[in-house]
Amino acid sequence: MSVMKKLEVGILGATGMVGQRLASLLENHPWFDLRWLGASDRSSGKKYAEACNWRLGDAMPAGARSLLVNDCVPDGKAPQLLFASLDSKVAGEVEGAFARSGHAVVSNSSYYRMERDVPLVIPEVNPGHLALVRAQRRERGWSGMIVTNPNCTTVGLVMSLAPLDRTFGLAKVMMTSMQAVSGAGYPGVPTLDILGNVIPYIGGEEEKVEAETRKLLGSLDADSSHDGHVKSGEFAVSAHCNRVLVEDGHTETVSVALRSKATPGEVLAAWQEFQAPSEVRSLPSAPRRPIVIRGEADRPQPKFDVNTEHGMAAVVGRLRPCPVLDYKYVVLSHNTIRGAAGAALLNAELMKAGGYLD
Amino acid sequence: MSVMKKLEVGILGATGMVGQRLASLLENHPWFDLRWLGASDRSSGKKYAEACNWRLGDAMPAGARSLLVNDCVPDGKAPQLLFASLDSKVAGEVEGAFARSGHAVVSNSSYYRMERDVPLVIPEVNPGHLALVRAQRRERGWSGMIVTNPNCTTVGLVMSLAPLDRTFGLAKVMMTSMQAVSGAGYPGVPTLDILGNVIPYIGGEEEKVEAETRKLLGSLDADSSHDGHVKSGEFAVSAHCNRVLVEDGHTETVSVALRSKATPGEVLAAWQEFQAPSEVRSLPSAPRRPIVIRGEADRPQPKFDVNTEHGMAAVVGRLRPCPVLDYKYVVLSHNTIRGAAGAALLNAELMKAGGYLD
Amino acid sequence: MSVMKKLEVGILGATGMVGQRLASLLENHPWFDLRWLGASDRSSGKKYAEACNWRLGDAMPAGARSLLVNDCVPDGKAPQLLFASLDSKVAGEVEGAFARSGHAVVSNSSYYRMERDVPLVIPEVNPGHLALVRAQRRERGWSGMIVTNPNCTTVGLVMSLAPLDRTFGLAKVMMTSMQAVSGAGYPGVPTLDILGNVIPYIGGEEEKVEAETRKLLGSLDADSSHDGHVKSGEFAVSAHCNRVLVEDGHTETVSVALRSKATPGEVLAAWQEFQAPSEVRSLPSAPRRPIVIRGEADRPQPKFDVNTEHGMAAVVGRLRPCPVLDYKYVVLSHNTIRGAAGAALLNAELMKAGGYLD
Amino acid sequence: MSVMKKLEVGILGATGMVGQRLASLLENHPWFDLRWLGASDRSSGKKYAEACNWRLGDAMPAGARSLLVNDCVPDGKAPQLLFASLDSKVAGEVEGAFARSGHAVVSNSSYYRMERDVPLVIPEVNPGHLALVRAQRRERGWSGMIVTNPNCTTVGLVMSLAPLDRTFGLAKVMMTSMQAVSGAGYPGVPTLDILGNVIPYIGGEEEKVEAETRKLLGSLDADSSHDGHVKSGEFAVSAHCNRVLVEDGHTETVSVALRSKATPGEVLAAWQEFQAPSEVRSLPSAPRRPIVIRGEADRPQPKFDVNTEHGMAAVVGRLRPCPVLDYKYVVLSHNTIRGAAGAALLNAELMKAGGYLD
Repeated sequence: MSVMKKLEVGILGATGMVGQRLASLLENHPWFDLRWLGASDRSSGKKYAEACNWRLGDAMPAGARSLLVNDCVPDGKAPQLLFASLDSKVAGEVEGAFARSGHAVVSNSSYYRMERDVPLVIPEVNPGHLALVRAQRRERGWSGMIVTNPNCTTVGLVMSLAPLDRTFGLAKVMMTSMQAVSGAGYPGVPTLDILGNVIPYIGGEEEKVEAETRKLLGSLDADSSHDGHVKSGEFAVSAHCNRVLVEDGHTETVSVALRSKATPGEVLAAWQEFQAPSEVRSLPSAPRRPIVIRGEADRPQPKFDVNTEHGMAAVVGRLRPCPVLDYKYVVLSHNTIRGAAGAALLNAELMKAGGYLD
Repeated sequence: MSVMKKLEVGILGATGMVGQRLASLLENHPWFDLRWLGASDRSSGKKYAEACNWRLGDAMPAGARSLLVNDCVPDGKAPQLLFASLDSKVAGEVEGAFARSGHAVVSNSSYYRMERDVPLVIPEVNPGHLALVRAQRRERGWSGMIVTNPNCTTVGLVMSLAPLDRTFGLAKVMMTSMQAVSGAGYPGVPTLDILGNVIPYIGGEEEKVEAETRKLLGSLDADSSHDGHVKSGEFAVSAHCNRVLVEDGHTETVSVALRSKATPGEVLAAWQEFQAPSEVRSLPSAPRRPIVIRGEADRPQPKFDVNTEHGMAAVVGRLRPCPVLDYKYVVLSHNTIRGAAGAALLNAELMKAGGYLD
Repeated sequence: MSVMKKLEVGILGATGMVGQRLASLLENHPWFDLRWLGASDRSSGKKYAEACNWRLGDAMPAGARSLLVNDCVPDGKAPQLLFASLDSKVAGEVEGAFARSGHAVVSNSSYYRMERDVPLVIPEVNPGHLALVRAQRRERGWSGMIVTNPNCTTVGLVMSLAPLDRTFGLAKVMMTSMQAVSGAGYPGVPTLDILGNVIPYIGGEEEKVEAETRKLLGSLDADSSHDGHVKSGEFAVSAHCNRVLVEDGHTETVSVALRSKATPGEVLAAWQEFQAPSEVRSLPSAPRRPIVIRGEADRPQPKFDVNTEHGMAAVVGRLRPCPVLDYKYVVLSHNTIRGAAGAALLNAELMKAGGYLD
Repeated sequence: MSVMKKLEVGILGATGMVGQRLASLLENHPWFDLRWLGASDRSSGKKYAEACNWRLGDAMPAGARSLLVNDCVPDGKAPQLLFASLDSKVAGEVEGAFARSGHAVVSNSSYYRMERDVPLVIPEVNPGHLALVRAQRRERGWSGMIVTNPNCTTVGLVMSLAPLDRTFGLAKVMMTSMQAVSGAGYPGVPTLDILGNVIPYIGGEEEKVEAETRKLLGSLDADSSHDGHVKSGEFAVSAHCNRVLVEDGHTETVSVALRSKATPGEVLAAWQEFQAPSEVRSLPSAPRRPIVIRGEADRPQPKFDVNTEHGMAAVVGRLRPCPVLDYKYVVLSHNTIRGAAGAALLNAELMKAGGYLD
């Protein structure tokens, strides 16, 4: 694709933590060219370098610095493809308005994720769910579309579960998360709340993880009349969500019950052999290995493993029998890359490769 | 008991973190008088104030400062009652030698906990298990005895489970811990290992929690021939243990399956009404309320709740249905007080009140 | 004073961090009775227990829980004596309005501190500066008054400097602070800004420390025409202010040049012998020892020393010769107690004892 | 130099934090080939991958993994050029033994730094001091040599001072450090010591900074009889050293008095224009800009700036007048790269380029 003209793209919610990650990941992207930024009234009209309190370790991409920040309203100037990392309070209205106006909105917000006609996609896991957009456009009369990625806590869990579900069938999933503060955005978690502390509650998070996991591992039942919908996976999911003093990387302890017997070696093999479909593997942001297994007794750890595969892998370890369900293990993923900005970017690449943006 | 002469006591392993907590808790104790300290060669012969790198926020008790530190060998000078907070590598030998020589050793070490004839006791939960010492002394030919308290991660879990087990019967228990660094002693966890990190592994911890929980909630089957032994509780326990950047307080997420149906109100009532037997309630270190329920959505938290009831309570919260088992909740307890020094002290008080030290 | 009726008091800015500390310190106060709370529109009309996101480790005082929160406008119902811990953006207007309406406002805000006719007072150091209120009331035509305490970073520094200034004379002062996050209020410092980081800048702080230090150690020049004003101390002060990952307690490294020669023993003696005037020593919140000297090589430290004298002392240590000025040392003080709420409370006690509230 | 054969090198103290950084920096080095590792008895005989508890975020270099770890004794098999990052307790003896046996020891230890005939070198600042090795070899009768780099706290300070000293002359320097935990090695600082705390003392550190700064900025007085020695800079230095909860990066507040007047613009220009001599600029590990100026009000910060120029720059900011001396500013440098491993590596490159290893 080296000679193709890059597709112009924009970011709705460009000044937030996920918006910053998106701007960073889009620097030098082979397919996409960041040309438009949208944010709240407070930022609109300023240059990105002035409007944005840049919080990433790497410097703000030079190309983005001088872009003007626009209001988040479809005025005909924004590019067709828009990444959206808006606060969930405004996401419903803003994303809907842009989709109605013909934009393809690749959203990181929770607002539309569980809608019957909105694809919730992890390209390595359920790329076919993208097909839901046909029903979405017809039923809603939208010339554009909305495609979503899961919550940052869901994504690592589901990537580690997908090969187990395919190979052995899932019956039950129990998950406890220890989530990084960057998941709450910026300014996000006050230091006084989390220094030397654990907060055993994140509003709405457990419900999202439980519902999204089942939709992502559900099956697309196509029928002639309505282009199909997703039938949720038939297994139970229980989530306990906690905030801990980590900057990036959600660590999750997981116990699973499987439908068919599996030895530890078979479980490891299922992870080892897990691959995305070939059309996904060739996407620019796809990790070479979606699942990386650490063999050490005390890994994965955020400090050492969060950037595995440029932050796009689910890193698993500590597989062992579970006295209550069948197996237990630990999974780690980067919450603002694999769990947000990178997830949206990979979805957009899948849409482009699949002809959804033509 | 106000006019009785105080019982002289000592500490084996006095310079460690738990030894320091013991020294602190024994200051002005109504029944016990700290008169003897034992530690490793490196400390022996020095005054406690010199030998000990005191790490607690409160100052070293004046009475302890000038005590000489002795070797941990039974030379006839140590008091009958000894608290033991030794490294598990030496605990087996040292505690055994003192018990053989007639000392009552109240141990915080894991070495003897799961021995068939050694009581593993939480006074509010299974005070009757103390009776195992009769078999222990006869079978081992010891003039003294060893009584143990559980691992710091077990104790909060079991206190929260005990009323559920009694009222509804336990079938399955799933627990994920987020453990404080003080649980690893001093110097313990290097800053470079845990700053901005989670360590999803603590050697041997999960096995201890799984086995101890079932022993503590087991039943003492007395019979004429051998003074009984403990039949472990007939439920499955699965533990995931993690280290997080907290100083004091182990936070645990718990899911349970119960043998008989219970409404949320009935579960809360079981916790609310849980009381120690009256002979335990009157012990000097017994918490007024062994279980304290927090009603806020985001509690308990180590920062706010770890010192509830002087660090002797199990603080529970967030009770809600579990899609996989029956209920899920959060429990917090102070790992070096309720989980170690305070646990041993309460056991010693129970032994004293029960006539085991006469 | 045991049988006197307690004086009713209120707090302007009751829901902030310093307001919470004030409410906590006023619980069971022997002279003052907390009966009135004021805060922003958002809180007004609610009970304190609902309006306030209580962040202190100890529980909210029972007496304060059910108090209604009022608007911060003088409507005739607030008590005469008001503690003010308002955001500096509104402090000027609100405090002025209350003082004009006859209230004695004991303020923690920086707004009026450097005004020529406003006392800036540390009772142990310059209680006589209170006399400025006479000029203040006459010149401004206020029936009430405003009395201020210094910035949280100034107070420990000045307490440690006062005996050196009196005994040897100060010529130069160089100070670098490592300040706790609670000094920025709540929500205050975002975790993402300070985790694993140092922020070498706190807006306006250095200027405050440099100016306030000289006013506090200045002399009151009374003359017949205008009731005097304060002549700033004739020494140079340079401050470097930094934020570090500490909850409570500002640690400061200090170098000083003295006007007359002093041996290390003489400097230590000056600190050791420093006492408040006797009328200050008997105030309920006065620390027994305003300056506490730690002899260990590595103290004071926030973790161990911040609560010395209930958080009302300046804790000094590490006195040694300075190759550039004369001596260098470390001083620590509790920024929300000695540096804010406790400072205001002690000022109010001084005002009460001095007849300023009659 | 692209076709030259790489020089074989080794590391004494290869398993420590600085040894790990050295191994990491030597991976793919254009001039040096890591072929030999030495460490304590405990590690010797094992492969590096087994002997070393690797603590860096990047993976252990493949080439180093299978190298065997040797004892730190000169047995004729170690390469001529050895990097030494030994504990100062053994550095004197071990480094001396290797130098005597003909090895060029590039040492990060403090043991020999202040010896009259041992070069203490920052290549950008005082490359000419290397010439001291001639006297060293003759006087000590060594066939090898020892060259040292400064303490991790000294290096950033001196890099920021060097242009000021050259341009305006230094009269007085006051520095307060806020030092990262990695400076204490591994396991190093216990979490219980530093969580939520500041430790205002690091043993021996202040003396090192004060003496090394003056030696580094001193002048080499060559004379015919003894090949010269270094005359320390004639200015006073006072250091206050503190440990804070940062992983990598020492932040320092600095005040300076200059011998000749300078405007702020002139000071900034002195930093901006500062360059290493051309023979240093072309060394593989030399930073493009030895001093990087940040213009923001709140920078440099470890989180954002520590890796500037691959961790080899001194990052300065916040230049402003000092009411006590002339100017004050903040400087940050990476303590295990610029302050240790990178410093030694750059010294070795300077030695190689200068013909000292032929």
